[in-house]
Amino acid sequence: MRKFLLLVALLAAVGAAGGAIAKPDVTHFTLPNGLEVVVIPDHRAPVVTHMIWYKVGAADETPGKSGLAHFLEHLMFKGTARNPADRFSLAVAAIGGQENAFTTSDYTGFFQRVPRDHLKEMMAFEADRITGLVLTDAVVRPELNVVLEEQNMRVANNPNSRLAEQMDAALYLNHPYGRPVIGWRSEIEKLDRDDALNFYRRFYTPNNAIVVVAGDVTAEEVKADAEDTYGKVEPRVDIAPRRRPREPQQEASRTVTLADARVEQPSMSRYYLAPSRTTAKPGESEALEVLAHILGSGANSRLYRSLVVEQKLALNAGAYYSGTALDYGKFDVYASPQPGKTLHDVEAAIDAVLTDVRENGVTADELALAKNRLIADAVYAQDNQVTLARWYGAALATGQTVEMVQRWPDNIRTVTADAIRAAARQWLDRRSSVTGYLVNSYQAAEKHS
Amino acid sequence: MRKFLLLVALLAAVGAAGGAIAKPDVTHFTLPNGLEVVVIPDHRAPVVTHMIWYKVGAADETPGKSGLAHFLEHLMFKGTARNPADRFSLAVAAIGGQENAFTTSDYTGFFQRVPRDHLKEMMAFEADRITGLVLTDAVVRPELNVVLEEQNMRVANNPNSRLAEQMDAALYLNHPYGRPVIGWRSEIEKLDRDDALNFYRRFYTPNNAIVVVAGDVTAEEVKADAEDTYGKVEPRVDIAPRRRPREPQQEASRTVTLADARVEQPSMSRYYLAPSRTTAKPGESEALEVLAHILGSGANSRLYRSLVVEQKLALNAGAYYSGTALDYGKFDVYASPQPGKTLHDVEAAIDAVLTDVRENGVTADELALAKNRLIADAVYAQDNQVTLARWYGAALATGQTVEMVQRWPDNIRTVTADAIRAAARQWLDRRSSVTGYLVNSYQAAEKHS
Repeated sequence: MRKFLLLVALLAAVGAAGGAIAKPDVTHFTLPNGLEVVVIPDHRAPVVTHMIWYKVGAADETPGKSGLAHFLEHLMFKGTARNPADRFSLAVAAIGGQENAFTTSDYTGFFQRVPRDHLKEMMAFEADRITGLVLTDAVVRPELNVVLEEQNMRVANNPNSRLAEQMDAALYLNHPYGRPVIGWRSEIEKLDRDDALNFYRRFYTPNNAIVVVAGDVTAEEVKADAEDTYGKVEPRVDIAPRRRPREPQQEASRTVTLADARVEQPSMSRYYLAPSRTTAKPGESEALEVLAHILGSGANSRLYRSLVVEQKLALNAGAYYSGTALDYGKFDVYASPQPGKTLHDVEAAIDAVLTDVRENGVTADELALAKNRLIADAVYAQDNQVTLARWYGAALATGQTVEMVQRWPDNIRTVTADAIRAAARQWLDRRSSVTGYLVNSYQAAEKHS
Repeated sequence: MRKFLLLVALLAAVGAAGGAIAKPDVTHFTLPNGLEVVVIPDHRAPVVTHMIWYKVGAADETPGKSGLAHFLEHLMFKGTARNPADRFSLAVAAIGGQENAFTTSDYTGFFQRVPRDHLKEMMAFEADRITGLVLTDAVVRPELNVVLEEQNMRVANNPNSRLAEQMDAALYLNHPYGRPVIGWRSEIEKLDRDDALNFYRRFYTPNNAIVVVAGDVTAEEVKADAEDTYGKVEPRVDIAPRRRPREPQQEASRTVTLADARVEQPSMSRYYLAPSRTTAKPGESEALEVLAHILGSGANSRLYRSLVVEQKLALNAGAYYSGTALDYGKFDVYASPQPGKTLHDVEAAIDAVLTDVRENGVTADELALAKNRLIADAVYAQDNQVTLARWYGAALATGQTVEMVQRWPDNIRTVTADAIRAAARQWLDRRSSVTGYLVNSYQAAEKHS
């Protein structure tokens, strides 16, 4: 069955690994109608991953219409005049293919993984639905209930997700990244066919899309097929540069406390506002990547060693950096106290670890191990064709270039201990942070703090 | 000298007193071009207060263009083709009049207080600048520096204001009330003539304005003069209903901590999201008004007695309710610890007072005293013609009616102890609150908590 996933968590994890790859022979070109195409040859098996990425996400929604980008992702499966109803999905299923779709703040993507001989067929289907979608109330209304049920399952009934939603809203004082990708429930409920069609007509056009093909193909084949299919779609609207409201100077640390009786294990995390790969100064996002690895990736990381192993304060502890975004990245540290320990205990211990790295930096051994590991992870991850295609797609849809993706391992190699300390000093700044507490009850939270 | 004031604080204080007045013989009519006119006869002196209120404020700005409503307030003094440069202001000064202007999230207002014989002249000037403003870069650019200097003085150099700005940003997860009226500095800096003109043309039109005249006049005179002046201004644009994004369900309490080395006296306050007079269910905003009075107005209030007099924890403590707004009101409680006491001490003491009122309500004596005092204050306040005119203007510009203003004292009289307890239980809910801490340094804050 088709699954509609908000792949935010997955992509964040991919982002942490880095967009790091060796250099496959990637070809990148733009058709006359403005559609970008990226080809990543991978001849290990006779299959192909075909993705289309629209450069529109939740952060591009009109205020008050949150959830529209994700809702439209669902509605893109409702058929066109040429391929009504489920015909596209049935075709994918009939050839034993897989398909999926995902929405983030910055982009909306669709993909199929199919035998290589079916690539052009997939292209024809996708090209058709760039501008050919047909929406009637009969399909829009029931799908809204599907989305509401998804919100229910993923957010409303998940205290962790609810806290993350409220933390994002508190982290961004002005930028639309504070808006949940799935939308605020109260606003999702009011979306209708006109909203969806207006959004579709405004953002779905070949000059706002990137096609990524990874697999057992050559650039020449893909180019010919793309011209025959995608190349025939007329651009229907000009696309303005994506300029979202920026954050004002952040100058007050924040906390958010979510109490839910279902919480058995209290936990805390802190988000620091950080630059994204796209907005960072040269080397800065790579320094944050290595810093996150040293602080909080795995059992040898500083946070885990200090809080879990040595002090026995926490059940787990870690950190990661999410850098794949058009406007801002995020640096996250987190921990859950052991029974008998408080959130205050683990937070104080985290702060001690962070203060140490701000003041004294990292060691040469830590640095060398982290770099090797990050680069090796990225190399191993290339073994997955879908992952490979997603790196390029996510990078290009958030303002990076093919060259930036390919340079990443080299950039990681050149990160210095000084750069890491500088990044820690600049970006692990409490004034631009939100600390979230997940607790069973406010009373318990007070006892625990 | 003309002063450009953001009268938010003053209006909040007026709001706390309530829009409560006995019933002057108020006339309210609408001209064929859509301009509303309110006439409040007041024959005690041969003067008149003339105000025009535009139903546009900071919450109507396009995201990324914060500060525009307030910037345009300034630019409205730059002259028209018919009355270039300072001619309007000079005319007011020449007759010994006063003038001023103010901007909030919901409206922008201009007023003159002049001898009664000059009313029609004032009307002609104001009518002229509804649509006749002339803006050149030569006047726009220097005025932007004036606004930036105002931001510097009122916000950037005032830790209290900066904390309030960050608390509002954290209180509203989605609604544009989270945007500062003066704008985010980074966005003010980029405003230009085109932004101002587009905003002006979109919102400044007789069908989006309310004229309030209080003073030694009759409704008939004012109507005739208004028809001769305002009545000649063509509406230039249709005005859509003001529907801003609403708040999602708020389900996590927040804190904001601002550290500034200039802070000599730490303090804390908590904002609870509340209904406004316009959005409240019948009786609800009046119950919040009485509750705020009992909790936190003056030396006999519960917070002051408990924290300052009895426990000697705080230097001051209080509460107020701001209800004059189109979409949301705010209930604020605050205190400053005595030397040697901590923010945690006073916050715990505030919580004890609030818990008591939620659980046990208020006494019959407290209720009777509060109602009498609120109504008496409102009656006394009518003595000020400008205050009177402002009550009606602010009420109408935020979606209330003349009848709602006039019914207010009766509504206050009917507030019951049950209604107060119900309001406290519903609205003093930590999940929809932000607590702000103003401290000297984060290190000190940690020692103090």
